Amino acid sequence: MNLDFTFQNPTRIHFGRTAMSHLSEEIRKYGPNVLLVYGKNSIKKSGLYDEVMRILHENGKSVVELPGIKSNPTYAQMMEGARLVREHHADLILAVGGGSVVDCSKGISASAYCEGDPWVRYWENGEPVANPVVPVGTILTMTGTASEMNGGSVITHEDKKLKLGRVFPLEEMAPKFSILNPEFTFSVPQYQMVSGIFDIFSHLMEQYFSGDDDCVSDYLLEGDMLALVSAARKAVKDPHDYEARSNIMWCATMGLNKILALSKTQDWEVHMIEHQLGAYTDCAHGIGLAIISVPYYRYIYKYGLHRFVRYAKNIWHVDPAGKSDEQIALEGIQALSDFIAEMGIPQTLREVGATEDMLPAIAESTIKCGGYYVPTTEDVLAILKACF
Amino acid sequence: MNLDFTFQNPTRIHFGRTAMSHLSEEIRKYGPNVLLVYGKNSIKKSGLYDEVMRILHENGKSVVELPGIKSNPTYAQMMEGARLVREHHADLILAVGGGSVVDCSKGISASAYCEGDPWVRYWENGEPVANPVVPVGTILTMTGTASEMNGGSVITHEDKKLKLGRVFPLEEMAPKFSILNPEFTFSVPQYQMVSGIFDIFSHLMEQYFSGDDDCVSDYLLEGDMLALVSAARKAVKDPHDYEARSNIMWCATMGLNKILALSKTQDWEVHMIEHQLGAYTDCAHGIGLAIISVPYYRYIYKYGLHRFVRYAKNIWHVDPAGKSDEQIALEGIQALSDFIAEMGIPQTLREVGATEDMLPAIAESTIKCGGYYVPTTEDVLAILKACF
Repeated sequence: MNLDFTFQNPTRIHFGRTAMSHLSEEIRKYGPNVLLVYGKNSIKKSGLYDEVMRILHENGKSVVELPGIKSNPTYAQMMEGARLVREHHADLILAVGGGSVVDCSKGISASAYCEGDPWVRYWENGEPVANPVVPVGTILTMTGTASEMNGGSVITHEDKKLKLGRVFPLEEMAPKFSILNPEFTFSVPQYQMVSGIFDIFSHLMEQYFSGDDDCVSDYLLEGDMLALVSAARKAVKDPHDYEARSNIMWCATMGLNKILALSKTQDWEVHMIEHQLGAYTDCAHGIGLAIISVPYYRYIYKYGLHRFVRYAKNIWHVDPAGKSDEQIALEGIQALSDFIAEMGIPQTLREVGATEDMLPAIAESTIKCGGYYVPTTEDVLAILKACF
Repeated sequence: MNLDFTFQNPTRIHFGRTAMSHLSEEIRKYGPNVLLVYGKNSIKKSGLYDEVMRILHENGKSVVELPGIKSNPTYAQMMEGARLVREHHADLILAVGGGSVVDCSKGISASAYCEGDPWVRYWENGEPVANPVVPVGTILTMTGTASEMNGGSVITHEDKKLKLGRVFPLEEMAPKFSILNPEFTFSVPQYQMVSGIFDIFSHLMEQYFSGDDDCVSDYLLEGDMLALVSAARKAVKDPHDYEARSNIMWCATMGLNKILALSKTQDWEVHMIEHQLGAYTDCAHGIGLAIISVPYYRYIYKYGLHRFVRYAKNIWHVDPAGKSDEQIALEGIQALSDFIAEMGIPQTLREVGATEDMLPAIAESTIKCGGYYVPTTEDVLAILKACF
């Protein structure tokens, strides 16, 4: 644990089949005005919308709604939410949906009382938030981003063709409470489920593939990866397997609530490339991550060979007998590729609507952070071409 | 994740060589009166006492002291602290020391404004705390109990010959802040260091050895165990290895801040037996746990055979080829025994001052909770005799 840190995560998690029974006690802590944020029609079809509205009304809440949040929530939607918060004097923003809805809700919270353009101040320039924010609570219906227990907010500015993630401090912007009932994720289509699974796996790898020290967090990340692989294999066969779906849900939350990455350097380049892919296509986030990961790690593994050897042995049980470190590392990355195929995830950019002429602009606009190696635009372009 | 849960841990952790630089910002959040709780003379010898007093005085605090907390903090000391809190109108209890000092401070916090005898109400009867409590902050100088990030408070009632642990709700009684500088643990004598290491290891095993499901928490517990074994082996060779000592410190905090045991049934029988051993002898807590663990697990492993097989393979890398599950499980427990010996920890009750005539009373007074199997008094006596 060579890097010093300060850590406190304020989110109260209610997990399991009975989690919704805690909604009343949570919303009673806030004033009467609620902004309800959600996505498309799925919560209406499932009956969850009616249940939430009933509980809100039983507790005397006055509700205004912001429906239709897109899977890549936009600047325009965030600003519309901010306007509703101000007009309605919202005391609580209740996000019902997946990571997109939660991310957008945090964006609304930071933006509602911001002087000037919050996009420029908080996403482009990364300024600390000085204005008052509005508490956010969540009821999760898709799992992957861990937005339910962190301060992250990824917003897409359509005019600027930019998808930027802002990580707000946990104590300031992590949801006050999150209700996680794994059964709410049962109705997510298989394609979205595996997209979420790979989003989680990518978070874990991106926190893991950096650093040369012996650090507790790496062992815990390995534990979360192993749990996820075990649960994912069960869930793709039976999406209604409660044990598997609940494990995936908790792997996700633990995977990016920051507690497994304390004291670690990290490598978020795969997310950076995918964010720009998402700005140019409608590719599901986790699918994009899966497509980029294998070529990316094949491109950079030599710079952190020891860690890729450890990954191959500990996560994929690659037998090291008689093999060079390079062979072991490459077998580990191949095992990752095989796992992606096993999940039924597309393996090329072509399959998700990208065209070859988009690639230079995606490479150019990608933030270059790296880990064991910091790529150039040319490197990113070569990686993207290898995904094609 | 088959058991539903609610989880929120309020403790703010400041970790690393610079952790003390956060003390001022933390204590400024509270009123002027501080009760400073600490143990014997070690913090005076190391200079930490002077540094803490300087920072307290620079921030205008009025300090009253409760020194001399024993390694098994007593009811009498707790009640003396409670009296000081009332007399001094303490706004903050600052614990500087190891788990005993922190446990005692939480006990003082719960007891100061309790009507009636807090021992009877909170430790014997487990009543919820209705009276006001006083915020606790900690500066840790020994690692093991994780008291710095949980609601536990183990107190010994000398007259009653009872050592009882009370687990208060995290949101109510977990320290508001904890300062964890691994360098502060460098001066702990080797015997105390390995005692702390085994306390951590026992916490992890006691959370792990229960349940039949596929649960994320078990994978995370395995990660923490593997990290601890790696760090412990380095620390016993070089107690000033910062990386190893910092890993041990964080393994400890993660090991019992409750986040690695969510949704799990658990088996705290080893702690229950050790608590009564501690009420009859002056045995260091972690040493007692180590002595009891091996005979205990040899006694009960058949009832949770699958989990002991998993433990043998995943923690101790026992090669399963050509062996029965029973052989694999027993090899795993033998590996645990070998690890205890490698740490230089005594392996018999005789070595820690117990006499054979104490054993029936210890067995009789031990709380029987169990996990895969719930032992009787006769079982506990048989286990104690096997430790002799």
